[in-house]
Amino acid sequence: MFQNKMPRYEVLSEDAMAKLDVAWRRLMTEVGVEFMDDRALELFRKAGQKVEGNTVFLDPDFVLEQVAKAPAEFDIQARNPAHNVHIGGDSMAFGCVYGPPFVRQGEVRRDATMEDFRNFTKLAQSFDVLDSAGGVICEPNDTPLDSRHLDMVYALQTLTDKIYMGNVVSGVNAADTIAMSSILFGGREKIEQTPASIQLINCNSPLRWDDRMLEAQFEYSAAAQPVVLTPFILMGAMSPVTIPAALVQQITEALSGIALSQLINPGCPVVFGSFLSNIDMQSGSPTFGTPESGIGLLCTGQIARHFGLPFRTGGGLTSSQTSDAQSGYEALMTMMPTFLAGANWVMHSAGWLEGGLVAGYEKFIVDIEILQMLQAEFTPLEIDEGSLAFDAHVEVGHGGHFLGSMHTMERFRTCFYRPLLSSSENYERWMRNGANDATARAEKKYTDVLEAYEPPPLDEAIREELEEYVVRRRAELGD
Amino acid sequence: MFQNKMPRYEVLSEDAMAKLDVAWRRLMTEVGVEFMDDRALELFRKAGQKVEGNTVFLDPDFVLEQVAKAPAEFDIQARNPAHNVHIGGDSMAFGCVYGPPFVRQGEVRRDATMEDFRNFTKLAQSFDVLDSAGGVICEPNDTPLDSRHLDMVYALQTLTDKIYMGNVVSGVNAADTIAMSSILFGGREKIEQTPASIQLINCNSPLRWDDRMLEAQFEYSAAAQPVVLTPFILMGAMSPVTIPAALVQQITEALSGIALSQLINPGCPVVFGSFLSNIDMQSGSPTFGTPESGIGLLCTGQIARHFGLPFRTGGGLTSSQTSDAQSGYEALMTMMPTFLAGANWVMHSAGWLEGGLVAGYEKFIVDIEILQMLQAEFTPLEIDEGSLAFDAHVEVGHGGHFLGSMHTMERFRTCFYRPLLSSSENYERWMRNGANDATARAEKKYTDVLEAYEPPPLDEAIREELEEYVVRRRAELGD
Repeated sequence: MFQNKMPRYEVLSEDAMAKLDVAWRRLMTEVGVEFMDDRALELFRKAGQKVEGNTVFLDPDFVLEQVAKAPAEFDIQARNPAHNVHIGGDSMAFGCVYGPPFVRQGEVRRDATMEDFRNFTKLAQSFDVLDSAGGVICEPNDTPLDSRHLDMVYALQTLTDKIYMGNVVSGVNAADTIAMSSILFGGREKIEQTPASIQLINCNSPLRWDDRMLEAQFEYSAAAQPVVLTPFILMGAMSPVTIPAALVQQITEALSGIALSQLINPGCPVVFGSFLSNIDMQSGSPTFGTPESGIGLLCTGQIARHFGLPFRTGGGLTSSQTSDAQSGYEALMTMMPTFLAGANWVMHSAGWLEGGLVAGYEKFIVDIEILQMLQAEFTPLEIDEGSLAFDAHVEVGHGGHFLGSMHTMERFRTCFYRPLLSSSENYERWMRNGANDATARAEKKYTDVLEAYEPPPLDEAIREELEEYVVRRRAELGD
Repeated sequence: MFQNKMPRYEVLSEDAMAKLDVAWRRLMTEVGVEFMDDRALELFRKAGQKVEGNTVFLDPDFVLEQVAKAPAEFDIQARNPAHNVHIGGDSMAFGCVYGPPFVRQGEVRRDATMEDFRNFTKLAQSFDVLDSAGGVICEPNDTPLDSRHLDMVYALQTLTDKIYMGNVVSGVNAADTIAMSSILFGGREKIEQTPASIQLINCNSPLRWDDRMLEAQFEYSAAAQPVVLTPFILMGAMSPVTIPAALVQQITEALSGIALSQLINPGCPVVFGSFLSNIDMQSGSPTFGTPESGIGLLCTGQIARHFGLPFRTGGGLTSSQTSDAQSGYEALMTMMPTFLAGANWVMHSAGWLEGGLVAGYEKFIVDIEILQMLQAEFTPLEIDEGSLAFDAHVEVGHGGHFLGSMHTMERFRTCFYRPLLSSSENYERWMRNGANDATARAEKKYTDVLEAYEPPPLDEAIREELEEYVVRRRAELGD
């Protein structure tokens, strides 16, 4: 997996960090955080925190004690050990878009189906640059609501041999994911030793953790499966319009959720989550790839490191409806800061369109290209005799060219990044080849990759056990 | 103009800088640099440098002595003082694409004309984010070759009141530019006091400065008009395929050109130039917005600061034929590092398409949007009582929303960047409005801006004098 050995780009001064520190402590103490779950309230009460109704007024130092119990880094096992993932440090792991009810293929935008879900899972398996297909890559609207989590987890487990995300719609769904992971990895002890899935727990920002997400969090933290505690902030709606206020709120929310996980199961793995953008103040629409989200992202990395926590942020976000120029620059406007900040777990890395409402097939390929380019770009230079190439200059001389020089001949196959999608064809050749823009070329690319897809091998007995589990549980859930 | 007060992103270690330092000294001493101009050779010989044929074997310490005479920062005057530009320090100045023989409007790609040149000049005047229309925004192929520099300079001087770039095709063209600047600004002394144009002097890399560019450099440096000494490097063709080697060559070339300017006129303003990308090793085509160019750009900034020189690099570069997704991410893949590096003079900031062969009308608008976003993003956060917004949290409470809060009401007009081009319309509204992608919307935008254009006022006597000069010189040049 990718290791980001480049420097981090940090934009907050010590003074700025100190001001944020004072502010989150005040917000946590005086306004507090709501937890819509009695077990959570009870845990906080027992730990000596002030609880009024559903609001917990947290002592910041108590919270930091809990946060200190969380591991700074941890592993997640994949059924193919070559695809195991490390979360934290210089490691960056990438998963697909998460949550869209719709898909787009070229001009067609329609409800997502289970076939789309499987297609995106296959695409994720096919590109090395992705560490995970993710979780809800798109909503399979043609499957029953109560049991579709079983179909999704089964698809993720069987069509890929990479890590996957667990379902978080309810405690029941969480328990099913854990049970299915236990089957795939040889028992619950095996996944408690090394987690087998990672899950997204969103805050109902501002300052409220909802009941169903908390149920899922209880299941996963008890089983030592990592949870990504994520303030879900569109500034102007779920937080004040100013970035410093959003950062303070984000710290308060994330740390309060992390403290809960540590009360449930001290030492269980957690991730400092961030989903931070802003709305358009004219229309109220969510906007992505904005300057404000870029700044927020850079600050988030610095803040998470300050607390010694692995962090999640970033992705290839855009508000655009199609895979056009806007989608290209907005995706990179988020993904470049993602690398500059060194985010450890990057959801929405491929396929995000239309503010997350759409999983785009062509956009998926655009995002893979962007990811591959950035992984190449964020690789430190090697400066040595060979790369300084003095002899090549002696060979070529003034005004010559290096195409045929020995130094070039020895390196030409690997010296530069080779594009997946980008074209540098000249005009005449590009016209002869059909005058296809990046979106048209992306369509051909994903079609070819899906045709070439082969499922990774899986022990037939395990597959049967998983299938039996799905069939039994589907019946129990009444679908 | 824009001041970049954010931190610089530096990727070269001290050790790496030291290795580059050893290497450029060796290259300059042992391989040397060719100057295809007898006056240049004579200046170097007189200054005690070893000259054999056209090759000057330069003493690195002598070169650094010359470099030290160049100002670290300087001003360029515009005929509207509000548009004066400062080159160096935290200042970043932006100009249009430079050099394309073709233009693209939607599906149409054709020869550029003088009308296109005027259109792009008007667009540049219309957007505050651009400090200059540049120089050869496109080649006006419908005007006579020998005198078109007169038409271009006249258009730049009259249709904008911003700074402009002087022509560098020959010493004669340079002298014409200087004469026209002298008319516009009230005499040669006035422009020698504060320069009135900036000019691009390209190296014929590797390691050769050609005669015509040198002629132009002699004219401009003698008149104390800044020259941007720019190694023109597509790695794999004009330099070795390895980035460290390209950086070493770039230092050698740029510093040798700067040393010449200081011999011509000690203390005259210069800029450390960089145009650094790579070719596709399969096809030999130039490629832009590549990972290698991004890294090279970041290193260039660090290197220029090391020598205490203002520097030029970056832009909205792309290999794409059209204003598609590729053009969006490639442009930003260059422009984001341009800001991270804090480049002082940024050519090709708007309108670049197809590897620089095409000036794109729609792409111009895409680039303006990218520039505006980055200027917003690279503005330091203000962290104070107001932006921390504790009271807004008290007002809104848990799970509420901030749309109508007092804090929001006081700030909603200016709190977020307002897009020029990007759409966050929801699907239904976007469909109702014609389902226009970014390129289609850009077409409408540039059309509207051209219609709304009004020329900045100019003293009629000066205009007449400029016109007379153009008419007279055109006749003298035989056109």
